[in-house]
Amino acid sequence: MTLEEKVDQLLQLAPAFYEGANSAGQITGPLAGLGITEDNVRRTGSVLGLGGAEEAIAIQEAHLRHNRLNIPLLMMADVIHGYRTIFPVPLALGSSWDLDLAQRTAAIAAKEAAAAGIHVTFSPMADLTRDPRWGRVMESTGEDPWLNGQFARAFVRGYQGSGVAGEPYKIAACIKHFAAYGAAEGGRDYNTVDMSEWMRRAYYMPSYKAALDEGCEMVMTAFNTVDGIPATGNRRLMRDLLRGEWGFDGVLISDWGAVKEMIPHGAAEDERECARKAIEAGVDIEMMSPCYPHHLRELVESGEVDVRLVDEAVMRILKLKRKLGLFEKPHRYADPAAERNILLSEEHLAAAHEAALKSCVLLKNNGVLPLAKAAKIALVGPFAASSDLLGPWSCMGRREEAVTLADGMRAIAGSAAVTVAGCGAERMTDEELAAMLDAARSADVVVLALGEDSEMSGEAGCRANIRLPGRQLELIQRVRELGKPLAVVLFNGRPLDLHGVLDEADALLEAWYPGTRGGAAVAELLYGDANPSGRLTMSFPHSVGQVPVYYNSFNTGRPQSSPDAPVRYESQYLDIPNAPLLPFGYGLSYAEFRYGAAELSAVSLRPGGSLQLTVSVTNAGARQGEETVQLYVRDIAGDTVRPLRELKAFRKVALEPGETKEVRFEVTEEMLRYHHADLSFESDPGGFKIMVGPNSRDVQELSFKLLAG
Amino acid sequence: MTLEEKVDQLLQLAPAFYEGANSAGQITGPLAGLGITEDNVRRTGSVLGLGGAEEAIAIQEAHLRHNRLNIPLLMMADVIHGYRTIFPVPLALGSSWDLDLAQRTAAIAAKEAAAAGIHVTFSPMADLTRDPRWGRVMESTGEDPWLNGQFARAFVRGYQGSGVAGEPYKIAACIKHFAAYGAAEGGRDYNTVDMSEWMRRAYYMPSYKAALDEGCEMVMTAFNTVDGIPATGNRRLMRDLLRGEWGFDGVLISDWGAVKEMIPHGAAEDERECARKAIEAGVDIEMMSPCYPHHLRELVESGEVDVRLVDEAVMRILKLKRKLGLFEKPHRYADPAAERNILLSEEHLAAAHEAALKSCVLLKNNGVLPLAKAAKIALVGPFAASSDLLGPWSCMGRREEAVTLADGMRAIAGSAAVTVAGCGAERMTDEELAAMLDAARSADVVVLALGEDSEMSGEAGCRANIRLPGRQLELIQRVRELGKPLAVVLFNGRPLDLHGVLDEADALLEAWYPGTRGGAAVAELLYGDANPSGRLTMSFPHSVGQVPVYYNSFNTGRPQSSPDAPVRYESQYLDIPNAPLLPFGYGLSYAEFRYGAAELSAVSLRPGGSLQLTVSVTNAGARQGEETVQLYVRDIAGDTVRPLRELKAFRKVALEPGETKEVRFEVTEEMLRYHHADLSFESDPGGFKIMVGPNSRDVQELSFKLLAG
Repeated sequence: MTLEEKVDQLLQLAPAFYEGANSAGQITGPLAGLGITEDNVRRTGSVLGLGGAEEAIAIQEAHLRHNRLNIPLLMMADVIHGYRTIFPVPLALGSSWDLDLAQRTAAIAAKEAAAAGIHVTFSPMADLTRDPRWGRVMESTGEDPWLNGQFARAFVRGYQGSGVAGEPYKIAACIKHFAAYGAAEGGRDYNTVDMSEWMRRAYYMPSYKAALDEGCEMVMTAFNTVDGIPATGNRRLMRDLLRGEWGFDGVLISDWGAVKEMIPHGAAEDERECARKAIEAGVDIEMMSPCYPHHLRELVESGEVDVRLVDEAVMRILKLKRKLGLFEKPHRYADPAAERNILLSEEHLAAAHEAALKSCVLLKNNGVLPLAKAAKIALVGPFAASSDLLGPWSCMGRREEAVTLADGMRAIAGSAAVTVAGCGAERMTDEELAAMLDAARSADVVVLALGEDSEMSGEAGCRANIRLPGRQLELIQRVRELGKPLAVVLFNGRPLDLHGVLDEADALLEAWYPGTRGGAAVAELLYGDANPSGRLTMSFPHSVGQVPVYYNSFNTGRPQSSPDAPVRYESQYLDIPNAPLLPFGYGLSYAEFRYGAAELSAVSLRPGGSLQLTVSVTNAGARQGEETVQLYVRDIAGDTVRPLRELKAFRKVALEPGETKEVRFEVTEEMLRYHHADLSFESDPGGFKIMVGPNSRDVQELSFKLLAG
Repeated sequence: MTLEEKVDQLLQLAPAFYEGANSAGQITGPLAGLGITEDNVRRTGSVLGLGGAEEAIAIQEAHLRHNRLNIPLLMMADVIHGYRTIFPVPLALGSSWDLDLAQRTAAIAAKEAAAAGIHVTFSPMADLTRDPRWGRVMESTGEDPWLNGQFARAFVRGYQGSGVAGEPYKIAACIKHFAAYGAAEGGRDYNTVDMSEWMRRAYYMPSYKAALDEGCEMVMTAFNTVDGIPATGNRRLMRDLLRGEWGFDGVLISDWGAVKEMIPHGAAEDERECARKAIEAGVDIEMMSPCYPHHLRELVESGEVDVRLVDEAVMRILKLKRKLGLFEKPHRYADPAAERNILLSEEHLAAAHEAALKSCVLLKNNGVLPLAKAAKIALVGPFAASSDLLGPWSCMGRREEAVTLADGMRAIAGSAAVTVAGCGAERMTDEELAAMLDAARSADVVVLALGEDSEMSGEAGCRANIRLPGRQLELIQRVRELGKPLAVVLFNGRPLDLHGVLDEADALLEAWYPGTRGGAAVAELLYGDANPSGRLTMSFPHSVGQVPVYYNSFNTGRPQSSPDAPVRYESQYLDIPNAPLLPFGYGLSYAEFRYGAAELSAVSLRPGGSLQLTVSVTNAGARQGEETVQLYVRDIAGDTVRPLRELKAFRKVALEPGETKEVRFEVTEEMLRYHHADLSFESDPGGFKIMVGPNSRDVQELSFKLLAG
């Protein structure tokens, strides 16, 4: 390969740059804007954001006609929660606490994407999130490092199977955003991230590492700074830690334009310095910015950059192409006929339905749910008949294919039973309000379908105010004044400040963005044809002034001794509690779960041995339901401060009415290891608390000692 | 000295423990609660929180009667912004941008405190603050590392003079809270602090270091964690950095109870481990917790703690006592007769008056201010006649000695001209509202005196909601509806969300907590007998959802290109601007300042040389006034990201009407140094922007290059 060929193998462009793309008419624009020549395009290594099998085949064929070495393009896309069949957003899937489900959704997304010609997805996102202002919390699975790691592994297993070459219709996964993108300051997207290395290692890194341990093929850099240096040019983070210490030898790709964004970051004077810093850090693919093609050749020729860095990057890309079988079969699974059969297949829609059922979280119910099918329902509010249920990053999903809540409810209870009246999420006219109140007045039960437009979360969808937008709180008030039983269903992409909602509603179901089958699944839950089983994986704050609030916080030196009778000089606010409005792990059911007294098999644990914690759970209600039994640990004193509780395990238990099951957890020394101040990962002998319960707040607590080894 | 005598020299207790204390009756309680014996008390090294010269003399005499070695007690107190004569709170003094004034206030505080028997004050606080939820922002001078350092130096000079032994009535200063206490997570006091070492070094540490460079005798530990370890037991922070790298050989004291608080922090199993970790970290004095007296002897005798650590700590304390002259003159300046003359002297009150005048910041004025003395004024609101003007940490200050705004205004305009009606800051009855509206109805101009009760800020005074409390926004609305000219004066301890205030008022004067002479000084400003000259040193956020917002933030890789026409995929919120409501450095005057075109003497700078930036400032108004001309620099590209602007210098310029002055700044290579990723402190050759203007937002921008040395 010539040096130019090597360098351009590192470039990734959008379809608009290629002959044969559906959007071919746009070529001149981006070519000119990015300063990319046709020669660059012909030598490119990869492309992102394809529109389907036909386009993929056309671009690949055109590319191979022009490419001297016949190196096929890698084709990548943002397949985040489904390709065409859209599953609930990741924050919702996280709420299922169902790793098998997560894996199956990823496998289906991979199958659809592979048939459409995609080889790599920019998923999963394993960023730890503690700030609901940040719009991309919807793309994470929440605030727990271990649970995020479990989900990241499940998604990788789903996309890649036993290996991208080992099974048909598998695609490569790309863990992102390395590293710590979830901590964008002020919850403002792309903003500065700053934290200690200890915090990063202990809380933000484990989920990325889990994905790599699962064999994730690729890593994407984060837009943010790490220790004052943009991640994309951060040699210590990428070359020393990711490549060196962790031994990652897969492909590292920049996020969109992130190589060149080192200039506005103020960490590079010009494109040339961007190129040098990125290649030195170990970035193999430059996505949608032209620093490598413009400067890498010259940097190598001048001796400023060792050609071996370029060779290594090229080799990693070519190896991935070989692994994916592209040299033998450059179109891989791209096949318009297969695509038509696979996309939105019955099986896929059934999985989307199941995922939506399991992702919704019942946050309150004083008995108004489930609805009687004979009841006269007024279904009102911005999401009553909205198809904006796919959520951000819904890839090739089409809103018109989403089942609305109105359709879902009518399918169950009949059209006559459900009167529908809507409005905008941000704009509600007085006429719309009047129509909604009219509908409510003549109903037995009012179902308010509220939430955020999907553009209000997702990338760059950050809000400083995290209450329901527009006049929705007023709508709740006005409906409340009618004195009717009131159930609220929320469609949104972040934990919201639910004052004025949780306190006013008789029942509250958090439906997130539930995907293609969303309205149908939510309707089943509302009518009791299915039983809600989701549990929150992000705390819902009292108000935005409480952010960040998360369950695994530290005790501080002056913990609040009595939340109900605060005394001065303890760590608290004067005006709100320390606890979030709704805690991590929280969620209700139409069943009623009662816990027996938990027991520990011993009061001490020796390394190499194990303890058993057992607790019985009984369904004291009248309906079958599924409980998520959660196990937390607290290390009483460590080399560093330790969280008040850390999730260590959970079990999902299905219980018939009246049924009791014994749930058993095995506790080992490995579960007690943590990052010390010197970044070593080990346990300390001493006292521990162990907690079990239905969420992170309502736990039983026992004690044991870890003995020296 | 016996080992017990050494160990107890390290203990600090409150007066209640000592015979002869005014509060002697309480001895049994604290002795029992803390597990301190009478023998411990007799050997104690220091005491905190005395009540005046008589008590100080009595305690010292009693102590020397019982102490075998005749080692006098060190007497310390929280003399934060005045002892009995109370100056504006530090955040207000910071707003003066007047270092000489700050020094004089500290010198007066020292004189009063010394006469009352105090040897050491726990001041200045140099914590960098970016979160207005945190109640202790009132105790800082704001969000700029350099300006905080300048103020810390000024306060140290004021307290210590040319040295505590060199001049009469000087006391030792104690810089706090080491380190980074200002970054308490969520703005909740005592909460976890986490940041990169780079961030800590570059932004949070320089102001402490500045105080030490000024010769500050003592350092206090912070309540928070640093890299996951409580500061008070953080060996790397204290022994390696503070003592080792910075060479600090003065006394290091824990904050109140902080040694033992390592237990709730989860960083120590028991008091014994607390004692070991604190002495190993280098903490000399344990304030109000009993870990040293209970365990240090045994730790030394068992060989776990080297006795040299104890010896060194004792020596540092004894050296400070010798430096203060206590061995020759154990009562030092404690003298009830002198105390009576010195406290609240005319000179001190005049300085408090001047400080209050210079600390107020005019935030808006559409012409309603200054008030005509003949106008009929309705002075209404919670602070109309309130003496809660001293603010938190007002030491021996007495509210009844504070001049209220009502008294101040009546003294200027006569009682008949000012109708006063009040209410509570948090509680306002309908009757109070009616009375205030009645007063407003019959007035020419309404002055609304609003704010926060002083308990709503200060230590442990944290708020999640930073709008005006109670019904004050409603009060503004109701008064506004009367259509009268409306001036608002704010008394508060933090930047507030001023929506509903700034937009509704015709004029807005931020008076903070202005101290003993507060009402008199504010009245002079309102009536134009003095001209406001304060400038904010903390940004006022749009809303709490924007926190943290500060002027010296980084650009990010995707800065907002057009605040007025936002496009997606840039760093911003959907619902509020990125800019704060009021920027750092902002403040108005009754004069009108116009800037000429700034000029740079050259476009390049060589290390060792200098550039001159000159700009003319003209008073185009009709009144004499003082402008604060501010100089900012931006390094276009660095080894790490660089702030959008960094304050590097300022000049206060007094201008008569029509007068023009040329302001000249010298720019040197030293001003361009910053902390690199490897923590080295140096400049980089390359492009810089240099900005000059009346605040951090409204600047003229020029460019220059720093050449290689």
